[in-house]
Parts: sequence; C-alpha cells; structure tokens
Amino acid sequence: MSGPPFQIDDWQTAAAKKRQGLRDSIPKSHLLPAELAKKAAKGLLLPLDPEVLKCGVLNDLGIEITSIDDAAVLLDRIAKRIYSAVAVTEAYCKRASIAQQTVNCLTEILYDKAIERAKYLDDYLENHGTTSGILHGLPVSLKDLFGVKCVHATAGLASWIPNVSAEDSPITKGIIAAGGVLYVKTNVSQGHLMVESINNVFGTTSNPYNTALSAGGSSGGESALIAAKGSILGSATDGGGSIRMPAAFCGLCEYVPFTSLPELILTMLQGGVKCSKGRMPTMGIQSPGDGNESTNAGLGPMARSVSGCELWLQAQLQNQPWNFDFNCIPMPWNKEKAQRPKSKLVIGVVRDDGVIRPTPPVSRAWKRVITLLALAGQAIIDVPAGEIKEIHQRGTSCAMKSNVQGGGYGIMQHIIASGEPVVPRTATGSSASLLTTHEIFANYKERADLAARYNALWVQYSLNAILAPAVAHPAPPHGKYVSNSYAGIYNMLDYATGSIPVTKVDLERDVAPPEWYNAPAYPRIEEVRFPYEWGDKEMKEIYSSPEVFKDSPVGVQIACRRLQEEKCVGILKEIEALLKEGRA
Amino acid sequence: MSGPPFQIDDWQTAAAKKRQGLRDSIPKSHLLPAELAKKAAKGLLLPLDPEVLKCGVLNDLGIEITSIDDAAVLLDRIAKRIYSAVAVTEAYCKRASIAQQTVNCLTEILYDKAIERAKYLDDYLENHGTTSGILHGLPVSLKDLFGVKCVHATAGLASWIPNVSAEDSPITKGIIAAGGVLYVKTNVSQGHLMVESINNVFGTTSNPYNTALSAGGSSGGESALIAAKGSILGSATDGGGSIRMPAAFCGLCEYVPFTSLPELILTMLQGGVKCSKGRMPTMGIQSPGDGNESTNAGLGPMARSVSGCELWLQAQLQNQPWNFDFNCIPMPWNKEKAQRPKSKLVIGVVRDDGVIRPTPPVSRAWKRVITLLALAGQAIIDVPAGEIKEIHQRGTSCAMKSNVQGGGYGIMQHIIASGEPVVPRTATGSSASLLTTHEIFANYKERADLAARYNALWVQYSLNAILAPAVAHPAPPHGKYVSNSYAGIYNMLDYATGSIPVTKVDLERDVAPPEWYNAPAYPRIEEVRFPYEWGDKEMKEIYSSPEVFKDSPVGVQIACRRLQEEKCVGILKEIEALLKEGRA
Repeated sequence: MSGPPFQIDDWQTAAAKKRQGLRDSIPKSHLLPAELAKKAAKGLLLPLDPEVLKCGVLNDLGIEITSIDDAAVLLDRIAKRIYSAVAVTEAYCKRASIAQQTVNCLTEILYDKAIERAKYLDDYLENHGTTSGILHGLPVSLKDLFGVKCVHATAGLASWIPNVSAEDSPITKGIIAAGGVLYVKTNVSQGHLMVESINNVFGTTSNPYNTALSAGGSSGGESALIAAKGSILGSATDGGGSIRMPAAFCGLCEYVPFTSLPELILTMLQGGVKCSKGRMPTMGIQSPGDGNESTNAGLGPMARSVSGCELWLQAQLQNQPWNFDFNCIPMPWNKEKAQRPKSKLVIGVVRDDGVIRPTPPVSRAWKRVITLLALAGQAIIDVPAGEIKEIHQRGTSCAMKSNVQGGGYGIMQHIIASGEPVVPRTATGSSASLLTTHEIFANYKERADLAARYNALWVQYSLNAILAPAVAHPAPPHGKYVSNSYAGIYNMLDYATGSIPVTKVDLERDVAPPEWYNAPAYPRIEEVRFPYEWGDKEMKEIYSSPEVFKDSPVGVQIACRRLQEEKCVGILKEIEALLKEGRA
Repeated sequence: MSGPPFQIDDWQTAAAKKRQGLRDSIPKSHLLPAELAKKAAKGLLLPLDPEVLKCGVLNDLGIEITSIDDAAVLLDRIAKRIYSAVAVTEAYCKRASIAQQTVNCLTEILYDKAIERAKYLDDYLENHGTTSGILHGLPVSLKDLFGVKCVHATAGLASWIPNVSAEDSPITKGIIAAGGVLYVKTNVSQGHLMVESINNVFGTTSNPYNTALSAGGSSGGESALIAAKGSILGSATDGGGSIRMPAAFCGLCEYVPFTSLPELILTMLQGGVKCSKGRMPTMGIQSPGDGNESTNAGLGPMARSVSGCELWLQAQLQNQPWNFDFNCIPMPWNKEKAQRPKSKLVIGVVRDDGVIRPTPPVSRAWKRVITLLALAGQAIIDVPAGEIKEIHQRGTSCAMKSNVQGGGYGIMQHIIASGEPVVPRTATGSSASLLTTHEIFANYKERADLAARYNALWVQYSLNAILAPAVAHPAPPHGKYVSNSYAGIYNMLDYATGSIPVTKVDLERDVAPPEWYNAPAYPRIEEVRFPYEWGDKEMKEIYSSPEVFKDSPVGVQIACRRLQEEKCVGILKEIEALLKEGRA
C-alpha cells in the first residue's frame, strides 16, 4: 500500500468510524458517570472541576501523582520507588481519558502497551537497581504527527485516516531510549495549518479552563491534555507558533488547591520550547509536505515545568539523533548553559510589533515579568519601537508569503482526496498566494535583510534574549484567533524560543481603556495572499470585553538567537523561579 | 554610492586599469629579473623553479620560512621568537609577489598594512611575553570575496571593480582576532561560478606545477598561491567543489628537496576543508546573490597541512561568530573530536559515481589511501555500487537544477552592467534552466529523498566517513575541466568534507587501459539546463593521455556527516600521517 493521501469516498463515515474507534478504546473504568458525561457533552464540564476529580475514575494516589507538575519531581519519586511506573502510567491514562471526555484532545490511545511498558520499566528498576534513562517511567504524550510504529497518524486530514506509521520517528525513539512511556497521541488542526485545533476527523479541542475557548494549535491537543493534567510532558512542533500559542492559551501560573496535598503543587503552568530548525530530528514526521523548504518549523517539548521541557530536550539529544537523522545538527545538550543565568542578563522588550497591538492582559503579563526581572537586577531594554515595528511588519509579510508560496498545490491534494471541506481559516494557500521563482528569491533576500537588521539590534544592545508576547491575545473563542504575528516572526528568523504562562485574564483589570480602542488600527498585512489571519482592527472588535476571554491563561515569550535553546531554557527557569517567588 | 553592480561603460579599460594597479602595487624589490620575467610572461616559469628561488628576491631566511608547510610549526617558531612576525610577513609578501608574476593568482595586495600589523604583533609579543592568539604573526590569505574594510572585492566581475567593502567580514575578523596577518586577496572565476579561475578582470590563474593547467576554482587564486608557497594558510568558499577541486589540483604530497634545509620540509601538500552551511559565518561575503537559497555553500580553509586547516577553523570559532552573524551555528571547535581517531574507523568507498568514471591517476590515489588505511587496521567498505550510482546521478541532476533554477536572472544583471562577455562555461543559468515554483518544490523533495537514502547507508554500514575522489580528473588544461560531480553531491547533502593530496600524475602508470576507454559512457546529466559541465564521453576524449595532465597533483576527498567538521579533520590527519609514514 502506498502512502497518503488515500482516496476516501465517504469522509464523514470514515471520520465517524475513526472517532468511534477512539471512544471504544477508552476503558470502561475511565468513563465519566452518566451525569457528568452529559455535562461534558454540552461543554459544561472542565477536566479540573472538583466533581470530576471526585467522580471515582481517579483514586487519591492517581490525583496525587498527576498533581505533580514538575517532571523532575515525579521522576525522582519513580526512581525512589515511591510510585511505580505502572501506578504513574495508570494515573495518567485515566486522566488522559478524562481530558478526552471533557475537551476532546486525543487521537490515539495506547494504554495497553503503555501499561506493559511500565511493567517492564518497574522490573528493570527492580533488577538493575537503577533507572533505564532520564525519563524512566514517565508518560510522555505525542502530537499526532510523530510516527509511532504500527500506530495511525492523520495530520488532521481525512485522507490520512488509513495512514499507519511504518516505524518510530526519531523523536519517538528518543523518548523510548530515555525510558519514557508512550500512551496517547493528540489532536491538531487540519493539516496542522492553523493555530487552533479543529479538523474534520476528530473535531475541535477545547480549552480546559473554559471550553468555549480555543486550546490553540496546531499542538492544541497537547496543550489541552497537559493543562488538564492528562500529561506531564508533551512532544510538539511549531512552524508558526504551534507550540508557543497553545502553551500560552492553556498555561496557568497560579496556586490552584484542589487536592489535600498542597505541598505537591510546586508550580502550575505550561511552558513550551520551540527549537531552531535542525536542533531536533525531523525524520518520520507524518505530515503532508509540498517541498516548500522556506518555513522554519521547529520541534520541542510542552510541559507543566521548565524542568520537564529540559528533560525532554536532554533525552532527545542524549540519543544522538544526528547519527540517524540527516536533518539533525550534532549539538549535544549543554546542561551548564541551561542553568539559571549567573551573570546579569540584558533583555530586550518588544512591547508592540506594529501588526497587532497586544490586548490588556497580554501587556499586563509582560509588564509583570519585566518588573520581576528588573527587581532581580536584570537589565531591561526597550528595543527601538520604530525599528521593531518595521522589521515585524515586513517580517510578518515575508513569513506569510513564504508559508503559502506554493499556492496550496500540495495540501489541496490531500484535502481533495477525501472531499472533506477546508476548515475555515486553514492556511492552505491559494492561486493568489502562488509566488514565481523570482518572487521567492526576492522574499529570501527580504528575509536575509530583516535577519541582518534584527541581528544588528542584538549586537548593538548586547542582548541575551528578547521578551515579547507569545500572541497578542488570550485564548480566543473557537475559530476566532486573530494572528500569530508575535510567534511567526521568530520562526522566520529561526530563533530558539519558549513561552511561559504568567497570569490569567482578570475581568476587572483587563478592561481595555478607550485609548486602546481609539488608537488607529495597524494596516492589515497580506490580506489577499494570506486572508487566514486577521488584523489589528479585528483584534479590537473581538476584544469587546475581557469576558470574551474569561479564565484564559496568558503567557509571555522568550526568544534567543538561533540554536541557543539552552540559553532560552535558562531564562525560562529564571522567570519561572521569579514568578514562584513573586507569588509567595 | 550604492552597491554593485556599477554601470561600467568601458569594461576593458576598467579591467586594464585594475590590473595595472595590481602590478604597480608589487614592490620593485619583489620583481623578477628581466630574463625570468620574460619567461614568466610566456608561462614558462614555475614559482617553485630553482632559478626563481635563487634569483635574489628571496633570501635564505625567506626561503627557510616559506618552506615550512606546517602552520603549527611556523607559529611555534614565531612564538619562540625564532622568526619575527615581520620576517615571516616579508617572506610571504615576497613569495606572493613571485606567485603573482608566475601564475597570476592575486587580486589585492596589502603588504604595507601587513608589515605594520606584523610590527604591532612583534611589539605585542615583546611587551606581553605571550602571543596575541593562535594565529599570532601568521600571514593568512583571503579569497577575493571576503570583505576587508576599505579594500576592493570584485567577485571576478567587471561591474564590481569599484566595489569597496564597508567593513571586515566575520571571517576576516576571526583571522585578525586570532593574531593573523592579512596581506593578499586571491583570484576567482567570473562570479565564482566555475571550478576554474578565469575572469575578465584579472585573467586566468595557472597551476604552479604546470602553467598550461588550471589551478581549479572558484578558489583557484588561493590554491595556486598556497602551492607556490606564497601562502601557508588560505580562506575560501565552496558551493560545489570550489575548495576541494583547486586543493586537489594544486596539492602535492611528495618530498621535493629544493632548499638546503630538507628537515624543514615536513610535508608538502595542500588540503582543504569545506564546512557544512552555517558552521562558519557568512555575512560580509562580497558576491552577487540572487536570493537562491537552495545551494549549500560552505566556507573553509586551504593549507599546506591539516594542522593549518584546523588552526583556521579553531580561530574562527574562538571568535564566537554566532554572536554577530545570524547565519552561524553556535558550535565551538571541539579539539578532542578533531584528533586522529583512537578507535577503529569504518570508511565507505565511492569508487565511481556513475556520472564520470574516474581517470587512472585518481583511482590510483584512492587505492593508495585505502591500502594505507586498511594496513593501519581501518575497516574499508565498498558502498553498494548500484545504489551509489543512482543517488549520485540523480543528486548531480538535483544539484545542477538547484544551482541555476533562477534562470540566470541575478548574475546576468551583474554581467550586463559592464558589458563584459560571459566567460565560457560560467554557470550563469539561462531561460532553459529556470524552474517554476512547483518544480523547485519537487527538486527539494528529490533532495530530501536522496539525503534519506544516503542517510540509510550511513546507518546500515555504521560509516564514520566516505572516501571518494575530489574530482574525476587531475588539473585539466585551462578551460577544460569536465565535471564537479564528486564534489557537488556533498554540497547538496551539506556534508562536512575535505580533500587531501596523495600523488601526482605518472606518465607511465597512469596510461588508461583500453577497457577504460571502451566502457560505455555514462549518460550526460542535465545537458540542456546545465551545459556548463561535460560528461563521461568528454572525459574519455580529454584524457587522451596522462601527458595532457602532466605534473598535476591528485587528491582524494573525505566526506563526513553534516557539521561533523572535527571528525573530517581527524580523518584527514590520519591520512596525512599514513601518507607521510608510507613515504618514509
């Protein structure tokens, strides 16, 4: 059988069957009681609601285990045999099932194999007296497009429903080699071409803090699952904000006491790291590629702690993927450089990219972070607003043109093969976006020019990092995200970036003042070639009140130079620590 | 004044003036006596001829200094004040002038500044008691396209004659930061788009072993200068063999006693290393770019010893160019990995790429190397011939298409601006070579497919490196190179590669047997899109006898995985040592 796309005569039936199979693979003991199931079906139940925790699916041990947010802490307890890998895996399987029933975030369920694997790991520890690797016994979730041998991967496309991976992707191998446990794969947008997670096969993934809101995308299944505490460590990709936006929409950085074991709640957040292109292996990714090599997609982890992100990165590179993946750069993880910085940092702040004026909660988030950083003695520098706006505006145009320069030729073959409709706002590209060869070259030159100008700012101000919004707005109502401008620019520049949650929408403090509404709207960028995103004008319309974004987490983004993932992780650790201390 | 191309009304006059200026900048004391100058003008004088060495331009100390081939040895003597930096610089300036008068390899002469700089370095050593860096006092030559502040850079184009660099390129900075001395820039092909060094501004660079032969290109000025002992360490670029082919054409690995100080002749060779894209900084390169980002040009050193190559690489990365060049990957030089390998190597051999059947001296060269390696206990594996031929044939087509996919649009603007003629076989591209957007994408997919297939061979055979010809033939008569197929494939795959000389053409042993001529010629690749290269049929015609390539050096190529420059240098060291031992 050749690979996808497969000709699908009746995509509705194929998709319904796929969803039914997924439902059937949830063990009976994981099912919510009828009353709660009814609420969940109406989107009225949150995975973290106390009634869910008390409904009987989870026992106290399961709640205790899954309430630990710091992967390093959980790993330590597994290594010390405080929890068996089987107990941890069972707890996460249950909680993943709850997440699926409340926010619809899974695509594949692999519980049986996970328990079998956990048993093997428990035996290993028993027999060897030592763990098998730095992720020993930790359940790790995977975005749907990572290949797992003999497991399906749809990329959110109906014509990919029959697609089964022939082998493990290098990322999958990296997790297994480090002792991790695979147990679920998670939802994406159609063709992972939108920063929400909506497709015709699995439907829409909702935000665990407010089901009326988006979980972000394309790694929205990961972010929702992790926020629902159905995963402690996830694996994702980011070609234009697909890690940072969902992490920002679903991260939450506040003390939320919902168990009798408050000391276990070390942090409550969700960070994500997008590596530069080539830092991580990319073979075996199950996704329709049209041969457009000008976008800089990066891989990375999402987790409820920066330590979790680092463990994932370290595990991948310990496996020396450059020896079997030709795309991967041979740079081992440098733990030393990933520590909280010992010397003073110089951090440039991007307050407003000139594409979308940040909404009040987003500005409040980065203001909080710069206050904490400044109080800790770090140097905060406002990067010149005019230069930043010009670079970001032109860069957003450049990135948009890059992404759809093929005119939709590739992706549409995969959509047409099943006859499924295009999900609104999926960035397929169109005949209007097709660039000629010389236009492509001109766009590369534009990118190089903008990269050199940004480079000059790093040099001029001796910057160690840039602090910017991850996205201009909190998690929007489904289908209503405005723009990925703050994230996409750093794909174009191929910076190593991460996001970290800071706060959540505050219905009082986040009311936008008249001057925010009255400021002239920035011009819409590439409206014809890239109509999938909206502009500053639409931002003002959608942000009619903070109520629209109620309970949404809000994060910030850290951008470091290309391939400086360690520095990025170190600075995220610094911010994580300052936020914790600031909260105390 | 805006940048190049500049409108040049009378390119002949502009070029003549440029050449005259270069001639005038040679100090009178460096000029060859009239009789020798006359011979040189007819191409009858070699820079290494005893009569040149005895003609009075060089004194014994100068000959002694420039006869040292190992940069590490010369640096050690400067550090120990056996030679002053001034003495070393003066010697190299003189010998560069001799090289210029015999093989026409220079484009810019910077002797005054070089001597001034050398004086500063001598004072520095005197005052500080220590050297200023790992290249302290060493003259380092630069291919013309590296920017040096206030110095011209033409890229071999008449319309670039007025071009003056506004600042030092990062490569230039790396040399200076390590204590090196800049003293000359060297010739290239027109737009550095041919693997010989012929252009309408400076003319043709000849091979120091036989002026009827090519020095290779596009870094042919470097290779000729280094082989003429007018440089001990050079700086070059390689987008399709531009380091490896000239290094192979001008390297020579034999004991050549021409001074009274034989103990100084440690080795006599010329190796070159082509780094993978991004390993070295590329900002500030003075060259017409059309925005085609699909070719993988790499930078690197050329030197008369592997130690020299390593010092150059180490010096560049010590300068942490990733902090000021956004193209550069933050990977410090790993000296440990660049040592002669301590464990057993597995080396795959590419005997024949299915594009051009290697000529007898080239096959003799790699056979000699594999014999030495095998005797030293290394495992030599023949990579399956059928698979290799298919990958290399398709890869050659893919690389050719990539290189000229813009249809000549960019480069022709720079040629038309002066009205100079296109140098025959300059790979400009043409309307026939222009690819559409979707053809470009298809070619990227082809590249990824071939890269994955080559990758599978590395994994299947646990290869550490590949040994292949650097080029199918020795240095050809001017304008008669056949193909860069053995080099270009590893640009396409972005491998870290190097070449090292092994032998020279032997008029008896290198007569091709009838079966070589009678073997059916491989089909010509991309003849319409890429007519600049010839094929296997033409190879047989040109190799009518070894006499055609008389006295040409012959080298081999080592290819390692992407960004594994250290491993490549380590293996080159191993081969260098085995060749020395084998010679004893």
